[in-house]
Order: sequence, then C-alpha cells, then structure tokens
Amino acid sequence: MKIAVLGTGMVGQALAGRLAQLGHEITVGTRDVAATLARTDPDGMGNPPYSRWAQGHPQVGLTTFAEAVAGAELVVNATSGAVSLDALAAAGAEQLAGKVLLDISNPLDFSRGFPPSLFVSDTDSLGERIQAAHPELKVVKALNTLTAELMVEPKALAGGEHTVFVAGNDADAKRTVTTLLESFGHTDIIDLGDITGARGTELVLPVWLRLMGTLNTPKFQFKIVR
Amino acid sequence: MKIAVLGTGMVGQALAGRLAQLGHEITVGTRDVAATLARTDPDGMGNPPYSRWAQGHPQVGLTTFAEAVAGAELVVNATSGAVSLDALAAAGAEQLAGKVLLDISNPLDFSRGFPPSLFVSDTDSLGERIQAAHPELKVVKALNTLTAELMVEPKALAGGEHTVFVAGNDADAKRTVTTLLESFGHTDIIDLGDITGARGTELVLPVWLRLMGTLNTPKFQFKIVR
Repeated sequence: MKIAVLGTGMVGQALAGRLAQLGHEITVGTRDVAATLARTDPDGMGNPPYSRWAQGHPQVGLTTFAEAVAGAELVVNATSGAVSLDALAAAGAEQLAGKVLLDISNPLDFSRGFPPSLFVSDTDSLGERIQAAHPELKVVKALNTLTAELMVEPKALAGGEHTVFVAGNDADAKRTVTTLLESFGHTDIIDLGDITGARGTELVLPVWLRLMGTLNTPKFQFKIVR
Repeated sequence: MKIAVLGTGMVGQALAGRLAQLGHEITVGTRDVAATLARTDPDGMGNPPYSRWAQGHPQVGLTTFAEAVAGAELVVNATSGAVSLDALAAAGAEQLAGKVLLDISNPLDFSRGFPPSLFVSDTDSLGERIQAAHPELKVVKALNTLTAELMVEPKALAGGEHTVFVAGNDADAKRTVTTLLESFGHTDIIDLGDITGARGTELVLPVWLRLMGTLNTPKFQFKIVR
C-alpha cells in the first residue's frame, strides 16, 4: 500500500521503517524538507536526527506534507499533537478527503515543562478535533498508548501479550488499520467504537508518563485482563 | 485494625465486607444513618440497598461519618467523588488529622448523564484536593481503577495477574495500604510516588468506562506488562 507518514520524529521513523520493511511504499511528510534534513543534533529524547535515520532507509522518501499525502492511499499522523492540526491543514483538506488516517497523536502541551499538561481533554479529544476539521477523512485513533518501538514491534516486550485500541467512525477504515496493527504483531486489539473513544485513550497518557518515570523505561504496555 | 469505611454504596459494601472477613473491626460511616437504613430500593446499578447488605453483615456497624472516624485507626473513602470533600468535612478535620486515608474516589460528574465528565483533571486531582483540604491526613490513592468486586477479590478475575497503584506523600501510610491490598490478594502493586500520581489513575476512568461498555462487563483490569 502507498502510505504517507506525517512526522519525522521517533514515532514517524518507527512507523515508516516498519511499514517499509513490511513491503509498503512509504513517503514521509514534513513541514520543511530542507530544515528536516539540515538538523544534525539528536532530539530532546536523544534520538538521532531524521537525516541519519534516512541513510539507513534509502527506500523511504521525504517530501512536504502535501506531496506525501497526494500520492497516498493511507495516511499516518505521527506528528506531535500540538502541531497535528496545522500539519493536516498543510497536507490539504481536499487531498485528505476520503482517505484513512491512522492518528497516533496525543494532546500533550510541553510548553510548561514536564510532565506535560493536556490541551484537550474530558468531553473532547484531539482525535475528535481532527475528525471535525476534516469531516471526510476517516480518522482512526490507535497506537497512542505505547512507546514508538512497541507500536511497531509489540513482541519486543517481554512479559506477554498486551492490548491496543482502535476508535473511529468508519468501520472499513478501522478494519484497514486493524489489519496493519496485526501485521505489526498486535494480537489483542479492542474496538472502542466511534472517534469519541479517543478521549479515553488520550487520557491514559498522564499515567503512562508517570509509569515511565516510576519504571524508568518507556518499554511497558497496558493489557486489559478479562 | 479498627477501620472506618465512609460510604454505603457498592464500593463501601465491598470494602467493609472484605475487611470484616479478614478480621478487622469495621464501622461504616454515612451522612444520615436513618436515611441510609430507610432506603429499600436497589441503587442505579441494581445493587441491593445497604439495609439488606447489613443483614448479612451483623458484625459491621453503621454510624455517622464523624463517629466512624473517631474510633478508627485507618479510614477508607468509598464515597462518590462528587461528595467526598463534604463527607470528609463532616467526618471532622481534627479527627482525621494523622490518620491514613485509603482514597478510592474518582472525580466523576454524572450530572449531565453518561458517560460522566471529570470535575477535576489534568494539573490537579481529587486525591490532591483531599490532601490539600486535610494537610495532616495521610492520603493514599488506590483501588480507583477497577470495579468494587475486583478491588477486594482480585483473584475473582480469570485471565491472570493485574496491576493496582498507590500514590501518596507518606511512605509509612503507603506501606500500610500496600499491606491491606496484599491481604486482598493483589500481587502487582506499583508505587506512583507522591499524591500527584493520583492524576494519572483518576484519568484512567474514561477509558475504563468505555471499556465497560465495549466489553459489556465491569470485570476487567489493567495489567502493566513489562
């Protein structure tokens, strides 16, 4: 499948790399290609810059948000939540219309330091805001409750099976995303219903961040025992 | 141990019954004893009224919030989140000072129907509000992420081990609560640090409520796989 991955950080790199490995044709979208390639320092989490990652993934293209989306059948939103709506606006509402969006973003506001606060919560969610801004886009919230490495390689975690969630208004789009998640190795995928299900999964982030501090690793996952 | 359980609903009954079974001396506290005993209808969830439950638990006393707390070494807050601060005020700040409070409450606002919204979230929590209102009370947030039956009988759930959390400012108080949780059968208890850890566990409620609808049962639990 032709897939656009929006975002060049840790999440974008993880998704683009794994999807390419699985045989998909991947184009990464960024706001400013030259600026992305010019960065040579690790990001705030110590991850290598995109340019170094790209050297190891020559089959993955890099272009603007709009060009990446133009040629794609499916779009992955791997941008920081704070810039997701801007990135999708730059990609172009007309080009997005009718496509499936795997939305991994979280409404985290790091402007006052760590831990971040939430810029949407409770009776709304970032997934819903994206859906409202792009009514013809088929938004499926998923993978926003775990660290990038485990999103695409769930078996990398010792300790057994765990759970991921999908939420969205379009049943076919959820089936498409579910099939992708299964191709990554996820085996317990719970459908939380329409896009308002994003509220709950986005609000898991505060305990996730706290656990990352307590356990001193981002390599853990939620399992719904039942 | 002499324990006061504040609240006569499903959570209060579960805690009082199990603690009595384990040999503790339990007094349940309520706002208005006569009104509590006069109710003969099931609650909104179909649970039997307190008076019927009490018939099967003659060793458990019922009195006012203040009298229950007066004789207790440890206090359990099993009231609805919306009335927790009022219940604790009625119990009396002076009587609470220095005691351990196992706080199970969640900041759920059902006034606009289901699903409830949150009346505290993000950069504050109900656990913190209770601690702020009673600086000398040793508040330990715990058990607020699972249904009443599983709080006190975790082994009742098929599917293996799961995780509960404690958060509070007083290390000795957390040890006391952890020992209680272990006596219920909990084996994976994660200490999230000070009472600000309550933010994350209270925000788990929206996805918990959504999962209850999706799975059509409240009998599930979170496991932190690591």
